[in-house]
Amino acid sequence: MVPLALIQDLSEQTPSKILFLILDGLGGMPHPDVGQSELEVARIPNLDRFAGLSICGVTDPIAPGITPGSGPSHLALFGYDPIRFDIGRGILSALGIDFPIGPNDVCFRANFATVDGSGNITDRRAGRLATEINRELCALLRHIHVPEVEIFVETESGHRALVVFRGEGLSDRVTDTDPQHTGVPPLSAEPTQEDAVPMAQIMNGFLAEASLVLQGQEPANSLLLRGAASLPDIPTLPQIYRLSPAAIAAYPMYRGLAKLVGMEVIETGDTIWDEFETLQQNWEAYDFFYFHVKATDTAGEDGDFNRKVQVLEEIDSLIPALLRLQPEVFVITGDHSSPSALSGHSWHPVPFALYSTTCISDEISEFTERALVRGSLGRFPAQDAMLLAMGHAQKLAKYGA
Amino acid sequence: MVPLALIQDLSEQTPSKILFLILDGLGGMPHPDVGQSELEVARIPNLDRFAGLSICGVTDPIAPGITPGSGPSHLALFGYDPIRFDIGRGILSALGIDFPIGPNDVCFRANFATVDGSGNITDRRAGRLATEINRELCALLRHIHVPEVEIFVETESGHRALVVFRGEGLSDRVTDTDPQHTGVPPLSAEPTQEDAVPMAQIMNGFLAEASLVLQGQEPANSLLLRGAASLPDIPTLPQIYRLSPAAIAAYPMYRGLAKLVGMEVIETGDTIWDEFETLQQNWEAYDFFYFHVKATDTAGEDGDFNRKVQVLEEIDSLIPALLRLQPEVFVITGDHSSPSALSGHSWHPVPFALYSTTCISDEISEFTERALVRGSLGRFPAQDAMLLAMGHAQKLAKYGA
Repeated sequence: MVPLALIQDLSEQTPSKILFLILDGLGGMPHPDVGQSELEVARIPNLDRFAGLSICGVTDPIAPGITPGSGPSHLALFGYDPIRFDIGRGILSALGIDFPIGPNDVCFRANFATVDGSGNITDRRAGRLATEINRELCALLRHIHVPEVEIFVETESGHRALVVFRGEGLSDRVTDTDPQHTGVPPLSAEPTQEDAVPMAQIMNGFLAEASLVLQGQEPANSLLLRGAASLPDIPTLPQIYRLSPAAIAAYPMYRGLAKLVGMEVIETGDTIWDEFETLQQNWEAYDFFYFHVKATDTAGEDGDFNRKVQVLEEIDSLIPALLRLQPEVFVITGDHSSPSALSGHSWHPVPFALYSTTCISDEISEFTERALVRGSLGRFPAQDAMLLAMGHAQKLAKYGA
Repeated sequence: MVPLALIQDLSEQTPSKILFLILDGLGGMPHPDVGQSELEVARIPNLDRFAGLSICGVTDPIAPGITPGSGPSHLALFGYDPIRFDIGRGILSALGIDFPIGPNDVCFRANFATVDGSGNITDRRAGRLATEINRELCALLRHIHVPEVEIFVETESGHRALVVFRGEGLSDRVTDTDPQHTGVPPLSAEPTQEDAVPMAQIMNGFLAEASLVLQGQEPANSLLLRGAASLPDIPTLPQIYRLSPAAIAAYPMYRGLAKLVGMEVIETGDTIWDEFETLQQNWEAYDFFYFHVKATDTAGEDGDFNRKVQVLEEIDSLIPALLRLQPEVFVITGDHSSPSALSGHSWHPVPFALYSTTCISDEISEFTERALVRGSLGRFPAQDAMLLAMGHAQKLAKYGA
C-alpha cells in the first residue's frame, strides 16, 4: 500500500467534493429459498443506472475470506490499513454509546454473566439481560471506589456494558477476564507488559468488588471484561488528505468512528431522508461527506431478505437527489457484506461503484454483486477506495517529475 | 498479506470439510501445433459444470512472471508466503526421497559432475549419469568418515544425489560448491556466518575425500554441493488454522512437503482412483484434505500434449465422486502451470475454482485458462486460496467488532 506520508505529500485542497454513501452490510448472497441475492431481487433502477456511469468492482475490506467487524471495515474504506490500525473492542464499545473517551482512559467491553455456586460461568450473557436491569446494575457498580482512578460503568444494551478506567499511567496491555466459554470461572486480568502490572491489579480489585455488589443479582451475578483499549494513535483525514470531512450517521458507533478519524459529526435524524436533509444543508461547508445508512445491515443481520430488498429500494429512490448535488466523486459501497441468508456479517466481497465525470465508465448495467465484479476494478482491497476517490476528484498532485 | 498470528486468532475448529484437489502443473497454453491449450481441447464436462458453480480465477503462485518450483508453489497454496518461507533445495531433495530429516541435519542437493585434468568442470551433470551408477558411487562415498559427524549419501536419480551432514552445531549458512557453469573448478564452501566456519571445513574435507574416491570414475569424477538447508522453522496448518489436515499424494516430495506443514500423510496407491479410495476411507477423520495428482505435470514436462489432455479427461471422470462426498469447500487448482508446449514448469497463472454452497457463483461455463480468468477472483495470489477456503467453510471468526 501507499504510505500515508506519501499520500499526505500528494494531497491538495481543492473545491471538488467527494461523497461516500456507505450502505452498511450492503453485500448479500443468493438466498437458498430465492436463488438470488437481495440486490438481484430489488428493483433499483437508479442504482443500476449509477453502475452504468461508474467504475465498478467489489472490495475485500480486510482480506479475501475474512469477515470484518464494522470498526476495521470502516477504517479500510477511509484508507487505513485495518490490520495495522487495530481499534480495540473497548474503544468501539465506547464509541458506540458516544462516551467521550479521554487520553488517560482504558476502555473495556463488559458482559454481565451468570456464575454458579462454585464460581463457574454458566451463561456469558446472563440470559440476555433486559437493558433496564443492566442500567440498574451499572448504577450499583458506579459506587465502587478505587483510589486515584475514576471508573465509568455505562449500559450499552442487553447484557453489554462499557467499563472505563481513567487515570495517569494506566495501560491497555492486559488480558481479558472473559474466558469466552462456560464451565470455567472468570479469568484474572494479567499484564502482558511490565508497565501494565498496576492496571491488572486495579481491574482485579474492581472485579472483586463487582462480584460482591452483584451477589444475589442472578442471572447477572458476575461481570466479564475484554478488549482493553486506549485511544489509538491514528492520523486523521484532514491530516492525511487535507480534507474537511463531515459525517452524517444516525448510529453512535459510526459517529464515534468518524470522530476518531477527524471528521466533523453533524447531528441528523433517523431516516435516510433526514440524513439527506442534513447533507443538503451542509453541502457547501465541507469537501468530503461520509453518509452512513444502517438499515441494510440491520435487515441482513436479522435474516430478513424481504426487508433488505425494501431498504435497497428505498435507498434507490434517494440516488437522484444525491446526484443533483453534483459531487465531483460519488462512491456507493458498503463497509462489509451482511447476507440475510447468513443473518450476520460475512466475508463476501462488497459491491462498489465510483461515479465521476472523470471516469472511464464500465458500462455495467446492473448494481448487483455478480454484475459489479465484472467492472474494471474487479475484486480489490477496500483500502484503495480513498485514493481512487481522491484521484478522480483531482485532489492528488503528480508523484515524481 | 494477513499475518499468520492474526489468522491463528481468527481460526476456529468446525465440522466443515475442505478439499483441495491439486492437479500438478495444471495450467497450459495454446500449443503452436494445435492453437488451443490442453484444457481447451479436453472434453471435461464435469470440470466445466464445476466451474459454473464456483468462484473462479487464475493464481500467481509466487508473483506475475515467476516460474515456481513445486516446493514454493505448494507452500503458497497452503497459505505461506513462498518468498519468506524459503525451503532450501537440500530439504526439497531430502523430502523427494523420503529421507527422514532430523533437527541436527544439514541437507545438500549434490550433482555428480565431470572435471578435466586441470580440475575444471566440463559437465555439471556427468553426462546425465545412469541411476544405477549413481547408486554404486553413493555406496562408495558412504565410506568417507568425518569425526563427530554422520554423513548420508543417497541417490535421487540420474546425476542427482542427496548429501546430509548430521551432528551438533552444524549450520546451513554456507555457500554452494557448484559454480553453476563449466570451465572453472568447483568452488570451496565458505561460511556466510561466523558460526558456520566448522561446517564449511567439514564440507571441504568431505569433498576432498570424495574427489579421491571418485578419481577414475569418469564421467562422474567430481561431486558438487548446493542448496545447504536445515529443517525450516515453519508454523503448521494445525497451529495456524486449527485444522486436522490429511495428505493423499503418491509422490514422496509432496508427501514430504505435506508432513513439513503438519499434515498427516496417508498411504495410498499410484492411480487417482487409489487416491480417491484413500480419501473416501479417511473422510470422517479429518477436516482438510490435500489430494495431489502428479500425472498432469508429468505429461506437461514430457511435452506430451495428447497425454495431458487424456489425463485431464480421466480426472474429469473423478469429479462427481468427489462432489458426492459433499465437502463444504472444494477447490480445484494446480500448484503451477506446465504447458506441454514448453515441456516444463512455467510462469503462466494457474486455473482456480472454489465451490461452496456459500459462493456467489460466477457462472463461468468452461474450465479453461481463458474462461476462468473472467471469474470474480480474476488473477490473484495463490497464497489467498487458504483464506478463501477457510472463509467459505465458515472457519474464521469475525475480525474486530
